[in-house]
Amino acid sequence: MSETAVPTGPSNGMSRREELLAVATKLFAARGYHGTRMDDVADAVGLNKATVYHYYASKSLILYDIYKGAADFTVDALHDDPSASARETIYHFTRRLLVGISSDIERAAVYFQEAPYITEWFTEEQVAYIREKETQVYEHVRDVIDRGIASGEFYECDSHVLALGYIGMTLGSYRWLRPHGRRTAQEIAVEFSTALLRGLIRDEAVRHDSPLGADQADARSGG
Amino acid sequence: MSETAVPTGPSNGMSRREELLAVATKLFAARGYHGTRMDDVADAVGLNKATVYHYYASKSLILYDIYKGAADFTVDALHDDPSASARETIYHFTRRLLVGISSDIERAAVYFQEAPYITEWFTEEQVAYIREKETQVYEHVRDVIDRGIASGEFYECDSHVLALGYIGMTLGSYRWLRPHGRRTAQEIAVEFSTALLRGLIRDEAVRHDSPLGADQADARSGG
Repeated sequence: MSETAVPTGPSNGMSRREELLAVATKLFAARGYHGTRMDDVADAVGLNKATVYHYYASKSLILYDIYKGAADFTVDALHDDPSASARETIYHFTRRLLVGISSDIERAAVYFQEAPYITEWFTEEQVAYIREKETQVYEHVRDVIDRGIASGEFYECDSHVLALGYIGMTLGSYRWLRPHGRRTAQEIAVEFSTALLRGLIRDEAVRHDSPLGADQADARSGG
Repeated sequence: MSETAVPTGPSNGMSRREELLAVATKLFAARGYHGTRMDDVADAVGLNKATVYHYYASKSLILYDIYKGAADFTVDALHDDPSASARETIYHFTRRLLVGISSDIERAAVYFQEAPYITEWFTEEQVAYIREKETQVYEHVRDVIDRGIASGEFYECDSHVLALGYIGMTLGSYRWLRPHGRRTAQEIAVEFSTALLRGLIRDEAVRHDSPLGADQADARSGG
Protein backbone atom coordinates (compact mmCIF):
# COMPACT_ATOMS: atom_id res chain seq x y z
CA MET A 1 0.00 0.00 0.00
CA SER A 2 3.01 2.35 0.10
CA GLU A 3 2.97 5.21 -2.40
CA THR A 4 6.48 6.52 -2.04
CA ALA A 5 6.40 9.80 -3.95
CA VAL A 6 2.95 10.96 -2.86
CA PRO A 7 2.97 12.52 0.60
CA THR A 8 -0.82 13.05 0.59
CA GLY A 9 -1.56 9.36 -0.09
CA PRO A 10 -3.51 7.29 2.40
CA SER A 11 -1.43 5.66 5.11
CA ASN A 12 -3.88 3.44 6.94
CA GLY A 13 -5.03 0.95 4.34
CA MET A 14 -7.90 3.11 3.08
CA SER A 15 -8.12 3.82 -0.62
CA ARG A 16 -7.88 7.48 -1.52
CA ARG A 17 -11.60 7.53 -2.32
CA GLU A 18 -12.37 6.06 1.12
CA GLU A 19 -10.11 8.60 2.77
CA LEU A 20 -11.84 11.40 0.90
CA LEU A 21 -15.22 10.08 1.98
CA ALA A 22 -14.11 9.83 5.63
CA VAL A 23 -12.76 13.38 5.65
CA ALA A 24 -15.87 14.79 3.94
CA THR A 25 -18.07 12.96 6.45
CA LYS A 26 -16.26 14.64 9.35
CA LEU A 27 -16.58 18.07 7.71
CA PHE A 28 -20.28 17.62 6.85
CA ALA A 29 -20.98 16.42 10.40
CA ALA A 30 -19.29 19.45 11.98
CA ARG A 31 -20.30 22.25 9.58
CA GLY A 32 -23.26 20.83 7.70
CA TYR A 33 -23.36 19.89 4.02
CA HIS A 34 -24.49 23.37 3.03
CA GLY A 35 -21.65 24.96 5.02
CA THR A 36 -18.88 22.80 3.51
CA ARG A 37 -17.34 23.60 0.11
CA MET A 38 -15.47 21.20 -2.17
CA ASP A 39 -12.44 23.44 -1.51
CA ASP A 40 -12.73 22.65 2.20
CA VAL A 41 -12.80 18.93 1.42
CA ALA A 42 -9.79 19.22 -0.89
CA ASP A 43 -7.84 21.21 1.71
CA ALA A 44 -8.67 18.83 4.55
CA VAL A 45 -7.70 15.73 2.59
CA GLY A 46 -4.61 17.38 1.09
CA LEU A 47 -5.54 16.94 -2.57
CA ASN A 48 -6.12 19.54 -5.25
CA LYS A 49 -9.70 20.16 -6.27
CA ALA A 50 -9.29 18.53 -9.69
CA THR A 51 -8.28 15.27 -7.99
CA VAL A 52 -11.26 15.47 -5.66
CA TYR A 53 -13.52 15.91 -8.71
CA HIS A 54 -11.87 12.88 -10.28
CA TYR A 55 -13.25 10.77 -7.43
CA TYR A 56 -16.54 12.61 -6.99
CA ALA A 57 -17.96 14.65 -9.85
CA SER A 58 -20.03 16.71 -7.38
CA LYS A 59 -20.38 17.40 -3.67
CA SER A 60 -23.81 15.78 -3.71
CA LEU A 61 -22.26 12.48 -4.87
CA ILE A 62 -20.13 12.46 -1.73
CA LEU A 63 -23.23 13.03 0.39
CA TYR A 64 -25.03 10.28 -1.49
CA ASP A 65 -22.17 7.83 -0.84
CA ILE A 66 -22.44 8.64 2.89
CA TYR A 67 -26.20 8.15 2.78
CA LYS A 68 -26.05 4.94 0.79
CA GLY A 69 -23.41 3.51 3.14
CA ALA A 70 -25.52 4.27 6.22
CA ALA A 71 -28.78 3.03 4.68
CA ASP A 72 -27.22 -0.20 3.39
CA PHE A 73 -25.56 -0.81 6.75
CA THR A 74 -28.87 -0.43 8.60
CA VAL A 75 -30.68 -2.83 6.29
CA ASP A 76 -27.81 -5.33 6.60
CA ALA A 77 -28.18 -5.13 10.39
CA LEU A 78 -31.73 -6.50 10.20
CA HIS A 79 -31.84 -9.94 11.73
CA ASP A 80 -33.85 -12.25 9.52
CA ASP A 81 -33.44 -15.63 11.18
CA PRO A 82 -37.07 -16.81 11.02
CA SER A 83 -36.52 -19.29 13.86
CA ALA A 84 -35.58 -16.52 16.33
CA SER A 85 -38.16 -15.19 18.76
CA ALA A 86 -39.38 -11.62 18.29
CA ARG A 87 -37.43 -10.52 21.37
CA GLU A 88 -34.18 -12.07 20.08
CA THR A 89 -34.70 -10.43 16.70
CA ILE A 90 -35.17 -6.99 18.24
CA TYR A 91 -32.26 -7.40 20.61
CA HIS A 92 -29.82 -8.48 17.89
CA PHE A 93 -30.89 -5.66 15.58
CA THR A 94 -30.44 -3.14 18.40
CA ARG A 95 -26.98 -4.50 19.19
CA ARG A 96 -25.80 -4.39 15.58
CA LEU A 97 -27.23 -0.91 15.08
CA LEU A 98 -25.65 0.60 18.17
CA VAL A 99 -22.27 -1.04 17.56
CA GLY A 100 -22.39 0.19 13.97
CA ILE A 101 -23.39 3.73 14.93
CA SER A 102 -20.67 3.95 17.57
CA SER A 103 -18.09 2.85 14.99
CA ASP A 104 -18.99 5.78 12.71
CA ILE A 105 -20.82 8.49 14.65
CA GLU A 106 -20.15 11.13 12.00
CA ARG A 107 -21.83 9.10 9.27
CA ALA A 108 -24.96 8.73 11.39
CA ALA A 109 -24.85 12.43 12.29
CA VAL A 110 -24.65 13.48 8.63
CA TYR A 111 -27.47 11.10 7.76
CA PHE A 112 -29.86 12.59 10.32
CA GLN A 113 -28.73 16.18 10.10
CA GLU A 114 -29.20 16.40 6.34
CA ALA A 115 -32.36 14.27 6.17
CA PRO A 116 -34.77 17.26 5.86
CA TYR A 117 -32.92 18.59 2.81
CA ILE A 118 -31.90 15.58 0.72
CA THR A 119 -34.56 16.17 -1.91
CA GLU A 120 -32.69 19.40 -2.69
CA TRP A 121 -29.39 17.62 -3.35
CA PHE A 122 -30.27 14.15 -4.61
CA THR A 123 -31.82 12.93 -7.85
CA GLU A 124 -35.26 11.31 -7.67
CA GLU A 125 -33.65 7.89 -8.10
CA GLN A 126 -31.24 8.54 -5.23
CA VAL A 127 -34.03 9.70 -2.94
CA ALA A 128 -36.10 6.67 -3.93
CA TYR A 129 -33.23 4.31 -3.04
CA ILE A 130 -32.83 5.86 0.43
CA ARG A 131 -36.58 5.94 1.08
CA GLU A 132 -36.87 2.28 0.09
CA LYS A 133 -34.19 1.28 2.62
CA GLU A 134 -35.82 3.38 5.35
CA THR A 135 -39.17 1.75 4.62
CA GLN A 136 -37.57 -1.71 4.80
CA VAL A 137 -36.14 -0.91 8.24
CA TYR A 138 -39.39 0.55 9.58
CA GLU A 139 -41.47 -2.34 8.20
CA HIS A 140 -39.07 -4.92 9.58
CA VAL A 141 -39.34 -3.52 13.11
CA ARG A 142 -43.12 -3.15 12.87
CA ASP A 143 -43.48 -6.70 11.49
CA VAL A 144 -41.33 -8.20 14.25
CA ILE A 145 -43.50 -6.48 16.87
CA ASP A 146 -46.62 -7.73 15.04
CA ARG A 147 -45.18 -11.25 14.98
CA GLY A 148 -44.59 -11.04 18.75
CA ILE A 149 -48.17 -9.89 19.31
CA ALA A 150 -49.61 -12.62 17.06
CA SER A 151 -47.69 -15.40 18.81
CA GLY A 152 -48.64 -14.13 22.27
CA GLU A 153 -45.02 -13.31 23.07
CA PHE A 154 -45.83 -9.57 23.29
CA TYR A 155 -48.70 -7.51 24.68
CA GLU A 156 -51.16 -5.93 22.28
CA CYS A 157 -49.77 -2.54 21.28
CA ASP A 158 -49.64 -0.15 18.35
CA SER A 159 -46.71 -1.66 16.43
CA HIS A 160 -46.60 1.32 14.06
CA VAL A 161 -46.10 3.88 16.83
CA LEU A 162 -43.70 1.67 18.79
CA ALA A 163 -41.58 0.93 15.72
CA LEU A 164 -41.18 4.68 15.20
CA GLY A 165 -40.37 5.18 18.89
CA TYR A 166 -37.86 2.34 18.80
CA ILE A 167 -36.14 3.78 15.74
CA GLY A 168 -35.96 7.22 17.40
CA MET A 169 -34.49 5.73 20.56
CA THR A 170 -31.82 3.59 18.86
CA LEU A 171 -30.83 5.63 15.81
CA GLY A 172 -31.10 8.90 17.77
CA SER A 173 -28.28 7.65 20.00
CA TYR A 174 -25.73 9.12 17.57
CA ARG A 175 -26.33 12.38 19.46
CA TRP A 176 -24.66 11.13 22.63
CA LEU A 177 -23.10 7.72 21.91
CA ARG A 178 -19.30 7.87 22.10
CA PRO A 179 -16.97 5.04 21.03
CA HIS A 180 -15.03 5.33 24.30
CA GLY A 181 -17.87 6.46 26.56
CA ARG A 182 -18.74 5.24 30.05
CA ARG A 183 -20.78 2.38 28.58
CA THR A 184 -20.03 0.43 25.42
CA ALA A 185 -22.49 0.30 22.53
CA GLN A 186 -23.05 -3.35 23.43
CA GLU A 187 -23.96 -2.45 27.01
CA ILE A 188 -26.31 0.29 25.86
CA ALA A 189 -27.99 -2.18 23.50
CA VAL A 190 -28.59 -4.48 26.47
CA GLU A 191 -30.07 -1.60 28.54
CA PHE A 192 -32.35 -0.38 25.75
CA SER A 193 -33.48 -3.86 24.72
CA THR A 194 -34.06 -5.02 28.28
CA ALA A 195 -36.27 -2.02 29.09
CA LEU A 196 -38.13 -2.07 25.79
CA LEU A 197 -38.65 -5.82 25.69
CA ARG A 198 -39.66 -6.06 29.35
CA GLY A 199 -42.34 -3.55 28.33
CA LEU A 200 -43.62 -5.82 25.56
CA ILE A 201 -43.18 -9.38 26.88
CA ARG A 202 -46.28 -10.87 28.44
CA ASP A 203 -44.87 -13.89 30.24
CA GLU A 204 -43.64 -12.90 33.69
CA ALA A 205 -40.89 -15.56 33.88
CA VAL A 206 -39.50 -14.76 30.42
CA ARG A 207 -39.73 -11.09 31.20
CA HIS A 208 -37.81 -11.47 34.43
CA ASP A 209 -35.23 -14.07 33.43
CA SER A 210 -34.49 -13.70 29.71
CA PRO A 211 -36.02 -10.59 28.13
CA LEU A 212 -33.32 -10.65 25.44
CA GLY A 213 -33.94 -14.27 24.46
CA ALA A 214 -31.97 -17.48 24.74
CA ASP A 215 -28.48 -16.00 24.34
CA GLN A 216 -29.02 -13.49 27.13
CA ALA A 217 -25.99 -14.77 29.04
CA ASP A 218 -23.74 -14.08 26.06
CA ALA A 219 -25.23 -10.63 25.76
CA ARG A 220 -24.57 -9.64 29.34
CA SER A 221 -20.96 -10.71 29.09
CA GLY A 222 -20.54 -8.76 25.87
CA GLY A 223 -20.28 -11.83 23.59
CA MET B 1 -56.07 44.15 16.89
CA SER B 2 -57.26 45.70 13.60
CA GLU B 3 -54.66 47.72 11.68
CA THR B 4 -56.79 49.21 8.94
CA ALA B 5 -54.22 50.69 6.58
CA VAL B 6 -51.62 47.94 6.79
CA PRO B 7 -52.44 44.97 4.55
CA THR B 8 -49.44 42.98 5.77
CA GLY B 9 -50.52 43.17 9.40
CA PRO B 10 -51.31 40.03 11.36
CA SER B 11 -54.89 38.84 11.11
CA ASN B 12 -55.08 35.99 13.60
CA GLY B 13 -54.37 37.62 16.94
CA MET B 14 -50.61 37.22 16.68
CA SER B 15 -48.42 40.26 17.16
CA ARG B 16 -46.28 41.12 14.16
CA ARG B 17 -43.22 39.85 16.00
CA GLU B 18 -44.94 36.53 16.68
CA GLU B 19 -46.00 36.29 13.06
CA LEU B 20 -42.44 36.97 11.94
CA LEU B 21 -41.17 34.28 14.30
CA ALA B 22 -43.73 31.75 13.01
CA VAL B 23 -42.86 32.44 9.38
CA ALA B 24 -39.11 32.26 10.04
CA THR B 25 -39.60 28.98 11.91
CA LYS B 26 -41.31 27.44 8.88
CA LEU B 27 -38.55 28.65 6.55
CA PHE B 28 -35.74 27.45 8.82
CA ALA B 29 -37.44 24.06 9.20
CA ALA B 30 -37.78 23.60 5.43
CA ARG B 31 -34.51 25.10 4.15
CA GLY B 32 -32.26 25.14 7.19
CA TYR B 33 -31.07 28.25 9.04
CA HIS B 34 -27.96 28.47 6.85
CA GLY B 35 -30.07 28.24 3.69
CA THR B 36 -32.53 31.00 4.68
CA ARG B 37 -31.70 34.70 4.23
CA MET B 38 -33.30 37.64 6.04
CA ASP B 39 -34.62 38.66 2.59
CA ASP B 40 -36.49 35.35 2.39
CA VAL B 41 -38.02 35.98 5.81
CA ALA B 42 -39.02 39.53 4.86
CA ASP B 43 -40.56 38.34 1.57
CA ALA B 44 -42.48 35.50 3.19
CA VAL B 45 -43.93 37.68 5.94
CA GLY B 46 -44.64 40.57 3.56
CA LEU B 47 -42.55 43.21 5.34
CA ASN B 48 -39.58 45.17 4.11
CA LYS B 49 -36.21 44.16 5.47
CA ALA B 50 -35.83 47.30 7.61
CA THR B 51 -39.02 46.40 9.47
CA VAL B 52 -37.79 42.85 10.00
CA TYR B 53 -34.56 44.26 11.46
CA HIS B 54 -36.65 46.47 13.73
CA TYR B 55 -38.02 43.34 15.38
CA TYR B 56 -34.88 41.23 15.16
CA ALA B 57 -31.50 42.91 14.83
CA SER B 58 -30.02 39.72 13.34
CA LYS B 59 -31.06 36.36 11.91
CA SER B 60 -29.40 34.61 14.84
CA LEU B 61 -31.73 36.43 17.25
CA ILE B 62 -34.71 34.87 15.47
CA LEU B 63 -33.11 31.44 15.81
CA TYR B 64 -32.41 32.10 19.47
CA ASP B 65 -36.05 33.06 20.09
CA ILE B 66 -37.11 29.75 18.52
CA TYR B 67 -34.59 27.88 20.65
CA LYS B 68 -35.48 29.65 23.86
CA GLY B 69 -39.20 29.05 23.28
CA ALA B 70 -38.66 25.33 22.73
CA ALA B 71 -36.25 24.92 25.67
CA ASP B 72 -38.51 26.85 28.07
CA PHE B 73 -41.53 24.87 26.94
CA THR B 74 -39.76 21.56 27.59
CA VAL B 75 -38.68 22.59 31.08
CA ASP B 76 -42.20 23.83 31.84
CA ALA B 77 -43.54 20.42 30.81
CA LEU B 78 -41.59 18.73 33.62
CA HIS B 79 -44.00 17.36 36.17
CA ASP B 80 -42.77 18.20 39.63
CA ASP B 81 -45.58 17.01 41.89
CA PRO B 82 -43.50 15.26 44.59
CA SER B 83 -46.47 13.14 45.68
CA ALA B 84 -46.79 11.53 42.25
CA SER B 85 -45.31 8.10 41.59
CA ALA B 86 -42.35 7.86 39.23
CA ARG B 87 -44.57 6.25 36.58
CA GLU B 88 -47.15 9.05 36.79
CA THR B 89 -44.42 11.65 36.54
CA ILE B 90 -42.96 10.07 33.41
CA TYR B 91 -46.35 9.59 31.81
CA HIS B 92 -47.47 13.19 32.37
CA PHE B 93 -44.18 14.57 31.09
CA THR B 94 -44.45 12.40 27.96
CA ARG B 95 -48.01 13.54 27.36
CA ARG B 96 -47.20 17.24 27.70
CA LEU B 97 -44.11 16.91 25.52
CA LEU B 98 -45.84 15.09 22.68
CA VAL B 99 -48.88 17.39 22.74
CA GLY B 100 -46.53 20.39 22.71
CA ILE B 101 -44.39 19.02 19.88
CA SER B 102 -47.43 18.20 17.76
CA SER B 103 -48.71 21.76 18.23
CA ASP B 104 -45.49 23.19 16.76
CA ILE B 105 -43.62 20.58 14.74
CA GLU B 106 -41.54 23.18 12.90
CA ARG B 107 -40.16 24.63 16.13
CA ALA B 108 -39.05 21.18 17.27
CA ALA B 109 -37.59 20.46 13.83
CA VAL B 110 -35.53 23.67 13.83
CA TYR B 111 -34.36 22.93 17.36
CA PHE B 112 -32.99 19.51 16.48
CA GLN B 113 -31.83 20.25 12.97
CA GLU B 114 -29.69 23.21 14.00
CA ALA B 115 -28.42 21.72 17.28
CA PRO B 116 -24.99 20.69 15.91
CA TYR B 117 -24.25 24.25 14.78
CA ILE B 118 -25.64 26.59 17.44
CA THR B 119 -22.22 27.44 18.85
CA GLU B 120 -21.53 29.06 15.46
CA TRP B 121 -24.57 31.36 15.68
CA PHE B 122 -25.18 32.00 19.37
CA THR B 123 -23.24 33.95 21.98
CA GLU B 124 -21.69 32.01 24.85
CA GLU B 125 -24.47 33.24 27.16
CA GLN B 126 -27.15 32.06 24.76
CA VAL B 127 -25.54 28.64 24.40
CA ALA B 128 -25.18 28.41 28.19
CA TYR B 129 -28.90 29.16 28.66
CA ILE B 130 -29.94 26.41 26.22
CA ARG B 131 -27.48 23.89 27.66
CA GLU B 132 -28.73 24.60 31.18
CA LYS B 133 -32.33 23.86 30.14
CA GLU B 134 -31.28 20.67 28.36
CA THR B 135 -29.38 19.54 31.44
CA GLN B 136 -32.43 20.25 33.61
CA VAL B 137 -34.59 18.05 31.37
CA TYR B 138 -32.07 15.22 31.21
CA GLU B 139 -31.46 15.31 35.00
CA HIS B 140 -35.17 15.40 35.74
CA VAL B 141 -35.82 12.25 33.71
CA ARG B 142 -32.78 10.47 35.15
CA ASP B 143 -33.77 11.48 38.70
CA VAL B 144 -37.34 10.25 38.27
CA ILE B 145 -36.05 6.88 37.08
CA ASP B 146 -33.62 6.80 40.03
CA ARG B 147 -36.49 7.63 42.40
CA GLY B 148 -38.50 4.73 40.95
CA ILE B 149 -35.53 2.37 41.40
CA ALA B 150 -34.92 3.55 45.00
CA SER B 151 -38.56 3.07 46.02
CA GLY B 152 -38.74 -0.38 44.43
CA GLU B 153 -41.31 0.83 41.89
CA PHE B 154 -38.83 0.20 39.00
CA TYR B 155 -36.31 -2.50 38.16
CA GLU B 156 -32.63 -1.74 38.58
CA CYS B 157 -31.41 -0.18 35.34
CA ASP B 158 -28.94 2.39 34.02
CA SER B 159 -30.99 5.56 34.53
CA HIS B 160 -28.46 7.61 32.58
CA VAL B 161 -28.72 5.51 29.43
CA LEU B 162 -32.49 5.10 29.71
CA ALA B 163 -33.05 8.83 30.22
CA LEU B 164 -31.14 9.46 26.98
CA GLY B 165 -33.12 6.74 25.20
CA TYR B 166 -36.39 8.15 26.52
CA ILE B 167 -35.51 11.66 25.34
CA GLY B 168 -34.58 10.32 21.88
CA MET B 169 -37.84 8.41 21.64
CA THR B 170 -40.12 11.27 22.72
CA LEU B 171 -38.40 14.36 21.35
CA GLY B 172 -37.38 12.54 18.16
CA SER B 173 -41.06 12.13 17.36
CA TYR B 174 -41.06 15.52 15.62
CA ARG B 175 -39.77 13.58 12.60
CA TRP B 176 -43.05 11.76 12.06
CA LEU B 177 -45.66 13.22 14.46
CA ARG B 178 -48.41 15.03 12.58
CA PRO B 179 -51.10 17.19 14.23
CA HIS B 180 -53.82 15.41 12.24
CA GLY B 181 -52.18 12.00 11.94
CA ARG B 182 -53.75 8.58 12.43
CA ARG B 183 -53.10 8.75 16.17
CA THR B 184 -53.25 11.86 18.35
CA ALA B 185 -50.24 13.04 20.35
CA GLN B 186 -52.17 12.00 23.47
CA GLU B 187 -52.63 8.46 22.14
CA ILE B 188 -48.98 8.21 21.16
CA ALA B 189 -47.99 9.35 24.67
CA VAL B 190 -50.09 6.51 26.09
CA GLU B 191 -48.46 3.96 23.74
CA PHE B 192 -44.91 5.14 24.49
CA SER B 193 -45.46 5.43 28.23
CA THR B 194 -47.23 2.10 28.52
CA ALA B 195 -44.43 0.25 26.72
CA LEU B 196 -41.63 2.10 28.50
CA LEU B 197 -43.17 1.92 31.96
CA ARG B 198 -44.20 -1.73 31.61
CA GLY B 199 -40.51 -2.27 30.95
CA LEU B 200 -39.51 -0.59 34.21
CA ILE B 201 -42.28 -1.48 36.69
CA ARG B 202 -41.50 -4.43 38.94
CA ASP B 203 -44.92 -5.19 40.40
CA GLU B 204 -46.89 -7.54 38.16
CA ALA B 205 -50.33 -6.18 39.10
CA VAL B 206 -49.35 -2.52 38.69
CA ARG B 207 -47.61 -3.33 35.46
CA HIS B 208 -50.65 -5.08 34.06
CA ASP B 209 -53.43 -2.84 35.39
CA SER B 210 -52.10 0.70 35.72
CA PRO B 211 -48.66 1.23 34.17
CA LEU B 212 -49.43 4.93 33.73
CA GLY B 213 -50.45 5.47 37.36
CA ALA B 214 -53.70 6.28 39.13
CA ASP B 215 -55.26 8.46 36.42
CA GLN B 216 -54.81 5.81 33.78
CA ALA B 217 -58.53 5.79 33.01
CA ASP B 218 -58.45 9.51 32.23
CA ALA B 219 -55.44 8.95 30.03
CA ARG B 220 -57.05 6.27 27.91
CA SER B 221 -60.11 8.43 27.30
CA GLY B 222 -57.92 11.38 26.32
CA GLY B 223 -58.66 13.46 29.47
